[in-house]
Amino acid sequence: MENFSEWFHEILDKGDIMDSRYPIKGMNVWLPYGFKIRKYTLELLKELFDRDHDEVLFPLLIPEEELAKEGIHVKGFEEEVYWVTHGGSKELNEKLALRPTSETAIYPMFALWIRSHIDLPMKYYQIVNTFRYETKHTRPLIRVREISTFKEAHTVHATKEESEAQVEDAIELYKEFFDYLGIPYVISKRPEWDKFPGADYTMAFDALMKDGKTLQIGTVHNLGQTFAKTFDITFENEEGKHVYAYQTCCGLSDRIIASIIGIHGDEKGLILPPSVSPNHITIIPILFKEGKEEVLEKCQTLKEEFEAEGVRVHIDDRDIRPGKKFYDWEIKGTPVKLEIGPRDLKENKTIITRRDNGEKIELPLDETVIDSVIDIIEDVNVSISNKAWENHEDSIKISEDLDEIPKLIKEGNIVGFYWNGKEDSGKAIEEETDYDILGTYNELDSDENKKCIYSGEDAKYLALIAKTY
Amino acid sequence: MENFSEWFHEILDKGDIMDSRYPIKGMNVWLPYGFKIRKYTLELLKELFDRDHDEVLFPLLIPEEELAKEGIHVKGFEEEVYWVTHGGSKELNEKLALRPTSETAIYPMFALWIRSHIDLPMKYYQIVNTFRYETKHTRPLIRVREISTFKEAHTVHATKEESEAQVEDAIELYKEFFDYLGIPYVISKRPEWDKFPGADYTMAFDALMKDGKTLQIGTVHNLGQTFAKTFDITFENEEGKHVYAYQTCCGLSDRIIASIIGIHGDEKGLILPPSVSPNHITIIPILFKEGKEEVLEKCQTLKEEFEAEGVRVHIDDRDIRPGKKFYDWEIKGTPVKLEIGPRDLKENKTIITRRDNGEKIELPLDETVIDSVIDIIEDVNVSISNKAWENHEDSIKISEDLDEIPKLIKEGNIVGFYWNGKEDSGKAIEEETDYDILGTYNELDSDENKKCIYSGEDAKYLALIAKTY
Repeated sequence: MENFSEWFHEILDKGDIMDSRYPIKGMNVWLPYGFKIRKYTLELLKELFDRDHDEVLFPLLIPEEELAKEGIHVKGFEEEVYWVTHGGSKELNEKLALRPTSETAIYPMFALWIRSHIDLPMKYYQIVNTFRYETKHTRPLIRVREISTFKEAHTVHATKEESEAQVEDAIELYKEFFDYLGIPYVISKRPEWDKFPGADYTMAFDALMKDGKTLQIGTVHNLGQTFAKTFDITFENEEGKHVYAYQTCCGLSDRIIASIIGIHGDEKGLILPPSVSPNHITIIPILFKEGKEEVLEKCQTLKEEFEAEGVRVHIDDRDIRPGKKFYDWEIKGTPVKLEIGPRDLKENKTIITRRDNGEKIELPLDETVIDSVIDIIEDVNVSISNKAWENHEDSIKISEDLDEIPKLIKEGNIVGFYWNGKEDSGKAIEEETDYDILGTYNELDSDENKKCIYSGEDAKYLALIAKTY
Repeated sequence: MENFSEWFHEILDKGDIMDSRYPIKGMNVWLPYGFKIRKYTLELLKELFDRDHDEVLFPLLIPEEELAKEGIHVKGFEEEVYWVTHGGSKELNEKLALRPTSETAIYPMFALWIRSHIDLPMKYYQIVNTFRYETKHTRPLIRVREISTFKEAHTVHATKEESEAQVEDAIELYKEFFDYLGIPYVISKRPEWDKFPGADYTMAFDALMKDGKTLQIGTVHNLGQTFAKTFDITFENEEGKHVYAYQTCCGLSDRIIASIIGIHGDEKGLILPPSVSPNHITIIPILFKEGKEEVLEKCQTLKEEFEAEGVRVHIDDRDIRPGKKFYDWEIKGTPVKLEIGPRDLKENKTIITRRDNGEKIELPLDETVIDSVIDIIEDVNVSISNKAWENHEDSIKISEDLDEIPKLIKEGNIVGFYWNGKEDSGKAIEEETDYDILGTYNELDSDENKKCIYSGEDAKYLALIAKTY
């Protein structure tokens, strides 16, 4: 893509997704069509969380005292926190933080709620707005000051093993979620110097955008007992002893929508996976004076028949020419357009246009049309995902030559390399290449005999490096 | 109710609705069960708004300059606004307000979006958290500093008539919504001195709580052209002239849930209308060693059969005695409890207990049970609503004697009285009775010949006065 950044902004604007002219930098307005994409995305995610998490809702504001309790954690966020200092004209007794993330809002309550091992595991999630005072260049959905849709889960466990199993469960949940969206990802364990402040370790999902940069789209953190000790989250175990709990948390942001746009879209606009598209089908009636009523009536009948099967249908009956409608729905990425004019009615046929590959399919306008189009929609979902995964896999290159890495990254790749896992060599690799290590992809068996790309020592990991957002 | 306030707090706590121990006064945590009530309530409301409004989402923060633009409006809120003054350790160039309501966030964008009469009417709504620095005594769901679930709609129209029709439409929408919840209300036009800051007039819904105080549960405002002039919201009309638009807005808060609790509940706890109850049926298996598997299996089969009909079912299979389960679900207000033990299985019967009237109904455990229970659930919905409306209507008294009003209000009534509509007599009535005028209920025909309760002049309105929250 020639100029990804420009294209991305144009899609947000012309696609009726987001208005970035709100008078505060980094805070944007969700427009109706974008809001619907957000809504369907959330519905998918909630279904997954609801299997074994309870949804709750905590206050936005966090007293300074609570936020500051966990020293390592607050250090990671303190320069990014927005502070409320006044109520009306009165200065508050204590400054209140706009949550940058909710550990310090939630965990004091966990300390009140958890008494015994029978209370565990405890698994909650919430969907809220969070705030970061970003000093870097902001970009809607990607780097913002108000994350309007932060999905965070927080779990508490009796043992270390259970917390580790929960991290794996959360990863599986994310996989299932991103598979619904057809979003390809790499999963890696972030290096020590890039993990969540206060976590034992951080697992991250990164997606490769069309500009060759990776976007962190989801993280899962094993918090160990760090926060439990800070917030005094203890429970009586089966032996009657009071011990500290183990915790995990995980988070997803508005970047999910950014990745849907940035990975599936093309020069003509959005390509929405049917799973989250506001309309699966947009029906475009071709209207002339003659036969207008019949055409609109047929559109309405079809709409109702599709809706009875759970298909989301929109009839674009605006009083403008069909060409403009086609153009608009290309931009907005409706998976399937269905066109019907008076001649089609006479000849008992309709033309279906797939947004993902532009294919036009003529179908008989009889009782088979509903199932045929549903099959096409399902095929779009699979095709979009397959195409994205193919591109993704073609863009992962393994290199055993440090000097080659920048070239490969500039060509739009994520690069795998062997690493001894030590911080000094890791940071040296970042410095020499001028790119960021995403994390370790997997641990090597000792008999693989690979050497660290920087130190020449025995490599412990296959790690990933890329140009990141 | 002996001590309503204590009872209300106990329900919130024991009903798993809300935890008020969060370390900031007036900000509370939604617990899983309460969150579900909130969720089903929102689903009903969204369905109504989605008929002809689009859902959007605006940023939380409002620049001081925008908030201050509409002078009358800001004066109504300025002592209640929370201000963000710092990002990290840096003082911001401009103070940012946590929205107390969103007119000043939304209307600058309306000015950008609206060009021509074909853009109108424009109808948006959003569901967000809003903030008020309350200095009065706070109370969860009723008087809070974070309104966690503010539902606000904002509409723009070409003519005054259309904006007035929109106010009527919004009132009809509210009626339909409160009817789903079985919440009785009085609708009145707020007096001039109590209307929304910046509005031409305010229509309000008030519900009478069990302690004899009225709770404002919804408002609709006709904004006229005040904000349009302040924020320069103009459009080109059909004659090609640029003119100011007309606007309305309306809002509902967490008080909806407060009214569900406070109007339907009884000494034993919550009584939830099935329309928003997390479980329509709670199945309580009576378990002995013998026949345990069969009983649980039957519960599971029933659950699936009910769910296929859209009924929400929970099986309480906790390892505690049935009496405790009955007690818990009384508090949590499940409309129907269904109990099955080994003997019931043998005798092919089940006992249904209605929460609203305590009635126990024995039903045969055959293919008729699903429909029978669904009928009971529907009857609960209607009965709860009828009972609430009867109580409500019994508590509206008309008085033609100013001295009698305080006594009637102390007895738990809303009092109707005749009024000339003038501010001086209105304020005098408030002062003499020490209660608040809700507003005018209806305009009198001149041939009704009623006299103002205070001035003795010809009365123009039947108005309402009550003890308010």
